Amino acid sequence: MNGSGARVGPYHPKVPGDAGGHILPGVFLVTIGLWWSTKSILKYICKQQKRSSSLITPQFLSRAEILEGIVIIVMVLVAMVGQFYWIVNIKPSPHKEMQEAQLRNWQHIIMYVVLAMLGVTKILCFTIRSLPVSLITLMLSNIFFVEAFLIHNHPKSLIVVDSYVHQLLKFSALLAGLAAFIEFLLTKNNVVMELLRSSLTMLQGACFVQIGFILYPKDMEHAWDLNDVNNTIILSIYFGVYYASTYVIIGVNYVLVSWFIKWKLSKLYPSEIQFLKDYEQQEDSEDGM
Amino acid sequence: MNGSGARVGPYHPKVPGDAGGHILPGVFLVTIGLWWSTKSILKYICKQQKRSSSLITPQFLSRAEILEGIVIIVMVLVAMVGQFYWIVNIKPSPHKEMQEAQLRNWQHIIMYVVLAMLGVTKILCFTIRSLPVSLITLMLSNIFFVEAFLIHNHPKSLIVVDSYVHQLLKFSALLAGLAAFIEFLLTKNNVVMELLRSSLTMLQGACFVQIGFILYPKDMEHAWDLNDVNNTIILSIYFGVYYASTYVIIGVNYVLVSWFIKWKLSKLYPSEIQFLKDYEQQEDSEDGM
Amino acid sequence: MNGSGARVGPYHPKVPGDAGGHILPGVFLVTIGLWWSTKSILKYICKQQKRSSSLITPQFLSRAEILEGIVIIVMVLVAMVGQFYWIVNIKPSPHKEMQEAQLRNWQHIIMYVVLAMLGVTKILCFTIRSLPVSLITLMLSNIFFVEAFLIHNHPKSLIVVDSYVHQLLKFSALLAGLAAFIEFLLTKNNVVMELLRSSLTMLQGACFVQIGFILYPKDMEHAWDLNDVNNTIILSIYFGVYYASTYVIIGVNYVLVSWFIKWKLSKLYPSEIQFLKDYEQQEDSEDGM
Amino acid sequence: MNGSGARVGPYHPKVPGDAGGHILPGVFLVTIGLWWSTKSILKYICKQQKRSSSLITPQFLSRAEILEGIVIIVMVLVAMVGQFYWIVNIKPSPHKEMQEAQLRNWQHIIMYVVLAMLGVTKILCFTIRSLPVSLITLMLSNIFFVEAFLIHNHPKSLIVVDSYVHQLLKFSALLAGLAAFIEFLLTKNNVVMELLRSSLTMLQGACFVQIGFILYPKDMEHAWDLNDVNNTIILSIYFGVYYASTYVIIGVNYVLVSWFIKWKLSKLYPSEIQFLKDYEQQEDSEDGM
Repeated sequence: MNGSGARVGPYHPKVPGDAGGHILPGVFLVTIGLWWSTKSILKYICKQQKRSSSLITPQFLSRAEILEGIVIIVMVLVAMVGQFYWIVNIKPSPHKEMQEAQLRNWQHIIMYVVLAMLGVTKILCFTIRSLPVSLITLMLSNIFFVEAFLIHNHPKSLIVVDSYVHQLLKFSALLAGLAAFIEFLLTKNNVVMELLRSSLTMLQGACFVQIGFILYPKDMEHAWDLNDVNNTIILSIYFGVYYASTYVIIGVNYVLVSWFIKWKLSKLYPSEIQFLKDYEQQEDSEDGM
Repeated sequence: MNGSGARVGPYHPKVPGDAGGHILPGVFLVTIGLWWSTKSILKYICKQQKRSSSLITPQFLSRAEILEGIVIIVMVLVAMVGQFYWIVNIKPSPHKEMQEAQLRNWQHIIMYVVLAMLGVTKILCFTIRSLPVSLITLMLSNIFFVEAFLIHNHPKSLIVVDSYVHQLLKFSALLAGLAAFIEFLLTKNNVVMELLRSSLTMLQGACFVQIGFILYPKDMEHAWDLNDVNNTIILSIYFGVYYASTYVIIGVNYVLVSWFIKWKLSKLYPSEIQFLKDYEQQEDSEDGM
Repeated sequence: MNGSGARVGPYHPKVPGDAGGHILPGVFLVTIGLWWSTKSILKYICKQQKRSSSLITPQFLSRAEILEGIVIIVMVLVAMVGQFYWIVNIKPSPHKEMQEAQLRNWQHIIMYVVLAMLGVTKILCFTIRSLPVSLITLMLSNIFFVEAFLIHNHPKSLIVVDSYVHQLLKFSALLAGLAAFIEFLLTKNNVVMELLRSSLTMLQGACFVQIGFILYPKDMEHAWDLNDVNNTIILSIYFGVYYASTYVIIGVNYVLVSWFIKWKLSKLYPSEIQFLKDYEQQEDSEDGM
Repeated sequence: MNGSGARVGPYHPKVPGDAGGHILPGVFLVTIGLWWSTKSILKYICKQQKRSSSLITPQFLSRAEILEGIVIIVMVLVAMVGQFYWIVNIKPSPHKEMQEAQLRNWQHIIMYVVLAMLGVTKILCFTIRSLPVSLITLMLSNIFFVEAFLIHNHPKSLIVVDSYVHQLLKFSALLAGLAAFIEFLLTKNNVVMELLRSSLTMLQGACFVQIGFILYPKDMEHAWDLNDVNNTIILSIYFGVYYASTYVIIGVNYVLVSWFIKWKLSKLYPSEIQFLKDYEQQEDSEDGM
């Protein structure tokens, strides 16, 4: 599919960076997107079924948020230690390349710092009650916007596919940032907006993983031709497929979560399930349309 | 009007694709835009005249939405079968062209999949009551945004008019997507916003039909000169004319629908029409301005 | 100020179009912007001082809107007759130029048609009460957006200042369109938003008048050098000055209108003015800050 | 860090303008951003703790706003006198440069006039009660938008770093303008939005100060190489650092202000502090999550 039948082999120059540095943040973003979608669905179902709020109490959610903040801070610290280790130990030979690699490192460190600020904000907002909770979604949009800004100011690449995948990354970061900003600004506990943000975060994670596999392939035989314009079109199709997939993933997640809640409730109040079903049907016919 | 009197004949190279592949989606979009405007007008009139809600019940509208979802899924399946038939059977000779045609096909299939997801969302949201209805307008904006994204990443054309009409298409898809997203975000049952979205959908449909007739003319004698910059200006004028026309069409539709409702009501409650008129006039003088 | 001391004379080629065709719409836009600001201020003052609503009744405002619609339609008809007269009578000699002039004419006719649609919408919305009033602001934003779109697709000019002034025009049309669209979408009877829209309309009118005097000067001695980049900077400064001026104009208008209302009220209820003042002061101290 | 070890010395041509002309507005913007954040935090804390409104009365805030307006007007007058002094006294020799310097001066004067309009609006809105208060935030966004517009139309520079820092400046002005406009449009007394606007204003101030030190260094030895693309990447990293810092500054400010309020209250009502704490804890457990 890399479209280079006529040539001897695909054009695949050495691109600065490594596979791990792209696949790891990608996996992190997909995971956190999935967790965010699960959290939103849980909150949504709890709001609809008053009975289920005995399972998912505000205290539980509050502790989950604080835990999320701690996990983010720990992951950032690990990533930054790795980054500094890289700065100290591995030294590419030429002077020019060395400098560019250092700049790239500092860009990553800034991103990590902003991410850590999200963790800190989460912990502060859910321990000190007088702080406004909307600060968290603002910090969330900041992460993505700062990321898009720094990718935009990355040292420019002349390789067609390399520069294209970074444009896709910037685009998905911008979209996720916009979704988080709109959430901060306009909506409060709107489940669809939260799921949109989750899906865009997962999309961005998929982009990162994709970059890891395209730019730094393990098997050079099946490597993509990095100068073939058709490959950018293939990537745009993959981008669309990933976006559609995130909705399918969230849909499956919704089904799983609601089944889990029903199963838990049936264990807690086995006798009252029939009553619950009746109550739901009644509500349906009331607010129909 | 193709402005090539001085030359021997208009420049009209073979453009990849065919007339049908552009006219059919165009007709589909115009039809669905018209149906959406009719639906919005019906809902608006029912809200104003309480008496007419005996004609258009929530159950009727709910079933109409489910039917719309089914129709969309069926049309997508038909289109995808056609697409796959094309992939298997028709084989353009050169290797390069073949590859581009395949990529274009996959782009179309992604668009169809996203469209099918709208259909599925419609059916799910109107059968399972616990799902948020605003998911539908989000999926709606997704269709147009994914479409605009994929047109933006289409294999680039060097023919002036070809690339211009695709820019117009992208522009109208973006506008329709924005209208749907704004509807999802800010308004609820705002008739003017729904009609704006309908009109932009019809505009996009008109663009598709226009492309079908310009790029793949049946009568090569009157074909447009595809390298004349003046033709892009003519197209921009047509674009404005189509946009203005959608408003006229929606206006006529409004008149027809309100007449239809009045006629139906007059058959149902012939004695009460005078009372209804009095009631309306009274309401007018109350909320005047 | 045209910065061409070193050269023999300023570079001033013949630009298609004429001074009148730019100054007239400019004066029209400034006038209508001023009228809109007056209307908004009147409505705002009437809302604050309940007593003044005896002067400005809803019936009066409704009739004013209908009259505005009629005036717009009449002006559009006059302009279109002029446009068609031009098409029939004046014929520039070369074939190419002729064609471009015709296209420009059709672009203008589309703009007039959309403007006429605003007039028609105004009349319909204020005579038929069942129509949504927000349709008017949507049509308003349509006018400016269609205008910006058509200016963007104007035959491109290679003259520096000519293309720059059209960019400014497009920019101000876009801003006015955005202001009207935001008004349609988010606010209802928000006086500041209405005044913003008025000021941007006046700004656009000032741009038109400016273009009329720069591109088609009567006195060729003091004509601007159309290829001097510094002149674009001067124009950007003028643009800023015009924008600041519109606020000053609206401020003066506010003072005049509120004086006029007070004077009218003092003639109607001479004895009650003191009471009114007391009432206002009391209200001030209540909702202070 | 200016990356020019291989060359004899960094490329550092004379850039029009001076350090003071950039550092002074920068310091002004950082100061006013800090003051705005303090004001917002004060208002936020007063709203939460009813008891503290005895310290910060609406009259006090109203007077603070008027004072702010007066300070702005005085600073604008001082700056404009400086500007006119410059126009009259200092005359760069060549004709072309002279003209460009004059244009730059007029651009600055327009910015000062728009800034003065903010001061005037503040004073008017807080003395005349019938004026809408949202006019102030509109004028605020106008300042930043006019500034961004004029920087965009600055005489273009061919020096890489010079043009890049002005792009950053334009970007931060646009962001601050957008934040102020969103505040005007959507939110009312939303503390997070006000703090966002403050932080973006401080960010812009930091940009100004940065420009002053980079383009007009006192110590030519350590001057930046103005043609090194890597320096633009360093600047983008600094931009991110400044943005993150503004949040830290605002956080510290929040802690200081809330401590100050508590200390003041403890002096006023020493016996009631324990009661206050109990009340707060009670409120926390009530609106938990």
